[in-house]
Amino acid sequence: MGGLHASQHVTAGALADNYARVRALSEALVEPLSEADAILQSMEDASPAKWHIAHVTWFWETFLLRDHLQGYRLFDEDWPFVFNSYYEAEGERIARFSRGMLSRPTLTDILEWRAHVDEAMQPLLEREELRPLIELGLAHEQQHQELLLTDIKHALFQNPLGPAMWEHAVREVAAQPDGWHSHPGGVARIGHQEPGFAFDNEGPAHRVLLEPFALSSRLVTNAEWAEFIADGGYDEATLWLSDGWAWVRENNISAPSYWREDEHFTHTGWQERHPQAPVTHISYFEADAFATWAGLRLPTEFEWEAIARGQEGEAPAHDPCGGNQMDEAAPPQPTGSDGLFGDCWQFTRSGYLPYPRFQPAEGAVGEYNGKFMSGQFVLKGASCATARGHSRASYRNFFYPHQRWQFTGLRLAKDQ
Amino acid sequence: MGGLHASQHVTAGALADNYARVRALSEALVEPLSEADAILQSMEDASPAKWHIAHVTWFWETFLLRDHLQGYRLFDEDWPFVFNSYYEAEGERIARFSRGMLSRPTLTDILEWRAHVDEAMQPLLEREELRPLIELGLAHEQQHQELLLTDIKHALFQNPLGPAMWEHAVREVAAQPDGWHSHPGGVARIGHQEPGFAFDNEGPAHRVLLEPFALSSRLVTNAEWAEFIADGGYDEATLWLSDGWAWVRENNISAPSYWREDEHFTHTGWQERHPQAPVTHISYFEADAFATWAGLRLPTEFEWEAIARGQEGEAPAHDPCGGNQMDEAAPPQPTGSDGLFGDCWQFTRSGYLPYPRFQPAEGAVGEYNGKFMSGQFVLKGASCATARGHSRASYRNFFYPHQRWQFTGLRLAKDQ
Amino acid sequence: MGGLHASQHVTAGALADNYARVRALSEALVEPLSEADAILQSMEDASPAKWHIAHVTWFWETFLLRDHLQGYRLFDEDWPFVFNSYYEAEGERIARFSRGMLSRPTLTDILEWRAHVDEAMQPLLEREELRPLIELGLAHEQQHQELLLTDIKHALFQNPLGPAMWEHAVREVAAQPDGWHSHPGGVARIGHQEPGFAFDNEGPAHRVLLEPFALSSRLVTNAEWAEFIADGGYDEATLWLSDGWAWVRENNISAPSYWREDEHFTHTGWQERHPQAPVTHISYFEADAFATWAGLRLPTEFEWEAIARGQEGEAPAHDPCGGNQMDEAAPPQPTGSDGLFGDCWQFTRSGYLPYPRFQPAEGAVGEYNGKFMSGQFVLKGASCATARGHSRASYRNFFYPHQRWQFTGLRLAKDQ
Amino acid sequence: MGGLHASQHVTAGALADNYARVRALSEALVEPLSEADAILQSMEDASPAKWHIAHVTWFWETFLLRDHLQGYRLFDEDWPFVFNSYYEAEGERIARFSRGMLSRPTLTDILEWRAHVDEAMQPLLEREELRPLIELGLAHEQQHQELLLTDIKHALFQNPLGPAMWEHAVREVAAQPDGWHSHPGGVARIGHQEPGFAFDNEGPAHRVLLEPFALSSRLVTNAEWAEFIADGGYDEATLWLSDGWAWVRENNISAPSYWREDEHFTHTGWQERHPQAPVTHISYFEADAFATWAGLRLPTEFEWEAIARGQEGEAPAHDPCGGNQMDEAAPPQPTGSDGLFGDCWQFTRSGYLPYPRFQPAEGAVGEYNGKFMSGQFVLKGASCATARGHSRASYRNFFYPHQRWQFTGLRLAKDQ
Repeated sequence: MGGLHASQHVTAGALADNYARVRALSEALVEPLSEADAILQSMEDASPAKWHIAHVTWFWETFLLRDHLQGYRLFDEDWPFVFNSYYEAEGERIARFSRGMLSRPTLTDILEWRAHVDEAMQPLLEREELRPLIELGLAHEQQHQELLLTDIKHALFQNPLGPAMWEHAVREVAAQPDGWHSHPGGVARIGHQEPGFAFDNEGPAHRVLLEPFALSSRLVTNAEWAEFIADGGYDEATLWLSDGWAWVRENNISAPSYWREDEHFTHTGWQERHPQAPVTHISYFEADAFATWAGLRLPTEFEWEAIARGQEGEAPAHDPCGGNQMDEAAPPQPTGSDGLFGDCWQFTRSGYLPYPRFQPAEGAVGEYNGKFMSGQFVLKGASCATARGHSRASYRNFFYPHQRWQFTGLRLAKDQ
Repeated sequence: MGGLHASQHVTAGALADNYARVRALSEALVEPLSEADAILQSMEDASPAKWHIAHVTWFWETFLLRDHLQGYRLFDEDWPFVFNSYYEAEGERIARFSRGMLSRPTLTDILEWRAHVDEAMQPLLEREELRPLIELGLAHEQQHQELLLTDIKHALFQNPLGPAMWEHAVREVAAQPDGWHSHPGGVARIGHQEPGFAFDNEGPAHRVLLEPFALSSRLVTNAEWAEFIADGGYDEATLWLSDGWAWVRENNISAPSYWREDEHFTHTGWQERHPQAPVTHISYFEADAFATWAGLRLPTEFEWEAIARGQEGEAPAHDPCGGNQMDEAAPPQPTGSDGLFGDCWQFTRSGYLPYPRFQPAEGAVGEYNGKFMSGQFVLKGASCATARGHSRASYRNFFYPHQRWQFTGLRLAKDQ
Repeated sequence: MGGLHASQHVTAGALADNYARVRALSEALVEPLSEADAILQSMEDASPAKWHIAHVTWFWETFLLRDHLQGYRLFDEDWPFVFNSYYEAEGERIARFSRGMLSRPTLTDILEWRAHVDEAMQPLLEREELRPLIELGLAHEQQHQELLLTDIKHALFQNPLGPAMWEHAVREVAAQPDGWHSHPGGVARIGHQEPGFAFDNEGPAHRVLLEPFALSSRLVTNAEWAEFIADGGYDEATLWLSDGWAWVRENNISAPSYWREDEHFTHTGWQERHPQAPVTHISYFEADAFATWAGLRLPTEFEWEAIARGQEGEAPAHDPCGGNQMDEAAPPQPTGSDGLFGDCWQFTRSGYLPYPRFQPAEGAVGEYNGKFMSGQFVLKGASCATARGHSRASYRNFFYPHQRWQFTGLRLAKDQ
Repeated sequence: MGGLHASQHVTAGALADNYARVRALSEALVEPLSEADAILQSMEDASPAKWHIAHVTWFWETFLLRDHLQGYRLFDEDWPFVFNSYYEAEGERIARFSRGMLSRPTLTDILEWRAHVDEAMQPLLEREELRPLIELGLAHEQQHQELLLTDIKHALFQNPLGPAMWEHAVREVAAQPDGWHSHPGGVARIGHQEPGFAFDNEGPAHRVLLEPFALSSRLVTNAEWAEFIADGGYDEATLWLSDGWAWVRENNISAPSYWREDEHFTHTGWQERHPQAPVTHISYFEADAFATWAGLRLPTEFEWEAIARGQEGEAPAHDPCGGNQMDEAAPPQPTGSDGLFGDCWQFTRSGYLPYPRFQPAEGAVGEYNGKFMSGQFVLKGASCATARGHSRASYRNFFYPHQRWQFTGLRLAKDQ
């Protein structure tokens, strides 16, 4: 498992607890969804909720049970074809945009499969040598939990009737004070360097040379974004990257995704936008244009990480998910009072590229991260849709510069 | 209701019976479908099953209840927007390819709506002056029953697991003897000319001058199509219309839709193809190329109708729906022993264009037929998926020359 | 040469004169064009001017010289590949939209080829048995002359600098009086029935039954079209065919092609539009919507022809080509005082489909017409860009309903 | 002119000489082209040759003459609209893919414009304060000289007749010995740091921390690429980035651009490929897959530059332009015996992103580089089509990962 970082300090019992908790959360997420909700696929980037909870089960069945449990027989011989996502080494699979056509197997069938796999997994949870792979499986399932939430939000949004999957829970949103984290520059150690699990793309840890800079102590808000709009931000070509301006014009972009008048679409339907809440559902192009308009810039992933180290551990400042954060029963994820973690993913101006001496993990799981290293940007932090316990300072999320169906926002930086 | 032909000889009681039977059949058709099946939309040409049974209900609610039942209140104010199909005069509506995104309202909601509308409709069924509109509503619902069946077939076909919605019922398929119906040419009276309902596009009845010709007494079979393939029919440009050849090459067409090896996909899943059964799911381009290959030609719609008049009344020769014909309880539709009705729609070489002195019906229902008169071809007959009692010699079905998800086949003709 | 109608009354000398005149006109048409103008290809429907005069030369070289002149050697072995248009039987050819990439051979090279072919053709012009093929070649070259003019107009229009290829010649445009040609209905003989050349698609001559109708004695004018626009014609869905309305919306259509304010683009650059001149450069969709708005309809091709027979022989009423009609030295083409011929092609509501007993010509030239018989509409008459002597009452031009880069207009009809 | 680095040591006389030489080379490049060749535009990424030499003239006329020469009047008021490339601040401009439609003004017109501008420029060449802008203009024109050559190559390649614009000149190609430049790692100073002109994106100079690595002393050859193909490189998904694999499949990629059998297309037509010559016309996706196949990797832009500093000054090892290098009369460009400069551009794995404290130049010329900083990769070195004197170690070229119509190749690297 070259490239995967295992947690040597986690006991087998704790691992089994984690497994149970992660698996249960996936099922809790589809609980409010009907069979019809669960099959919605609104665009090629997104997948149906049912597909997500089936695909993660395929992962366990393929890389753990099939490969490591003697005598295990596949629950259904035909399902790997339909629930493999992109692992070329695992053979053919259905076209991505056909996932929404899988009315069978039903959601009920998939939940049975999940129960079957969970039972079969029990003996493996105690095998020391499988721990890295199991931790990868858990992290993988947590990533799909976030995608499930952002994908179903996008799907429900297509319905002109504005349906909700959760009841609305009102939360206080307090304005965050302005402020800057200054950094003197110099050599910083970047990448995964603590005990515990990390993806292969977070390593190897290495040194980078930073110029003096400052990172804002808070996220850009809806109110600030409204100012950008009012000032003609979407109409002024010179604020935009060339590709960004083409994207704005071709798609008639004039606001973050999910906005209409003073409302935005949430998992609880259409709700009033809070001016002090962080802006979300913006693209890299928009984040960059906003920073240019503000006379500032986006941070690099290294600058962000250098500041975030030591800031982990507190609650998110806001809640763009509409009062329904992920996995409240679980231990809190590393969260800064500055909204570094748990409000929204924050764009950096760093391309998603390999760290020095990076090697993908061996085997099919090696297709996990490295093969996506072109054309995307790194996002840091974690969002309200990220599972608690899933984030850390070295975490590298990545999306194409036009994508914005995730809870993506921004935090400004400046030279010093 | 200029343009609509009402049935003056049907009693109010018979009309109410018809209404009940047609409405019940729609619900029987979705009975084997799950919530997830019922929302599948596999292409822009097709609609989800749930959408079909909602849309026809919108038709009753809009053109009958809203317009003619004093004090009627819409079941839901927002639903007309999502269940209008293409009636421009009825205002805005959702993009066609977003119908598959309507997980809400649920199938159960729609069935409640149907029950509500059916109850409200009862007094209207006795009002003489509404009869033309009610008969139109019934014919409209029957058309959507056929689309529902062909659309769900196309949707289930996308699933690599090959699901079935019905159990397979084996039927005998007997070879039909060769033969020709000769016609001496001369003036024939064409178009709707009997009592009873007809669509506006079937009239006015008028005379056309025919040259002597002969129409085959049987449909082209799967076995004959296999010969066409074996003889390189799909590889020989000179057999094809220019647009047809482009379509073959761009889409890598090499067989009728739903074929694989010796099987074809049906509502009962993958089944062996019967060589003597009529070929179905071919496009106009394919039908025309086959006729050219055979040294013959397609009939005009007038030739077909001239022969079919007087041939109505018997059972279909075969059953391409896989042993599950529509509406067996209903009175038989006009059906010829020659498979004129009830096996498959038969392409003619006639463009779908207005008859002399054609006038669309007034009001929004006038958008029913006339506005589709460009670029399409007329098909005659009826298929195994057509509701019994819905067809007649003057019926004009129409599709674009590349479309083939209906039960479309062909019958050859020749000059004499 | 089954399917081609030869002119038995034309002497060999007259044929040689015709050949010389037609060939010279092609060269006169490219005379004002630079090498760069002559290679412009502005859309897939259009071809470069140089390609047109090369392709017609390929036609002579292939179907006459190669096939009928003993010992003839191709001018260049590689050119058939690049100058074949769509004759599948003649082998592979370059993609249609790559014609604009053929900077070599140069225009000068092509003119040399033309001279070479013309010389080699001389002995063949005296061979009786080749007359049908030669007349086809001449008609073919005349068709490409018209396309050359409409294609180069479209290409020059792309240039924001508004270049002209001819000098502007002012002509008088007189308003045409209103009036109707009434027809009592009954059997009419339609299709090519006189001595002289005709394309295969104009025959066989046959009888059709007409209802009583009337055809306008004049073309619809620019002024009337401006009224249609002012009355919201392009904004009112119910005036349009369904496909037409989709085309209007997708392409933001709000006027005929080449219009801007009170001007339109011509071969002589931007010029003021004359209100009494016939409207041109409209699509079938627009023609049909206009007729609906006017409470009238388009004629069928049979109605048009029934009236036009006997109206041939006079000068066109107007001149939408901007004062530069085709081939003034040539004998006048059949032309009605009513603008039946020589102003613009007139849309009919008839689909472009085979006449009864139609058989394509044998061999590669049989690909000339029949294979285009799907999805297009018949246009009758001739335009200002049609070569004089090329038109007749039985002529069937055809285009797709969205195309409008030809000089296309309309003449209204009504039932009686 | 914040952001532009001027050459303070160049005398006014030397600058005038440079101006004359650069302008003359542009004209020499179009000399073998006909009017028709000069207008070819084969894809949206490319522009016609005539457009290139007009656009650079627009640059001089706009940013020098219009802005800095009192009383200067534009040669033609309408031309800025058609010859602006992408400078948003300079107003509207024609769609990029319409450049091939500009048959007028003619090539001759453009050459007259050039002469007019050159004459008007003379007094400005002596004004000290304009030197940075003039040097930018020269560098800009040199960049377009390279694009002109790669664009016309792509355009001529579309012609199945395989035309040549130059005569073929045979050159010796010697195999380069294997070898590695080792680097111990540590802090390196990167970016423009010498006297002389540089683009804004090459600065500010700054320090980066490098890990120990080695860079190959030679370029990958055609023979090695043939091995990659023979070993199934284009069929093995796991060698490819995910986007790269999609690109291979959608475009049926199976070799570098311009290859067929043992030949490749060049400015001198189809020629035999030399096995020892560096491979060219590959995309980033291909370069990355090759490196993975070879068990090595691409260098970062920093690694490449760290090695290249001090290697400048010698002749290129090979000549992929087919024996017709750019600008032979000019002083040699910095060129390494290792083919660092002058053979082909070399892909790095570095995203094209701003250096720390990067600021775009002010005004419209500030749109030169910064706005392209998303989705592209940095290439280092220079190609046989790069003007002599135009390259340096800090030069950052950039293209999207799928583009390959430039002379792009690769040089391998490894960790140490």
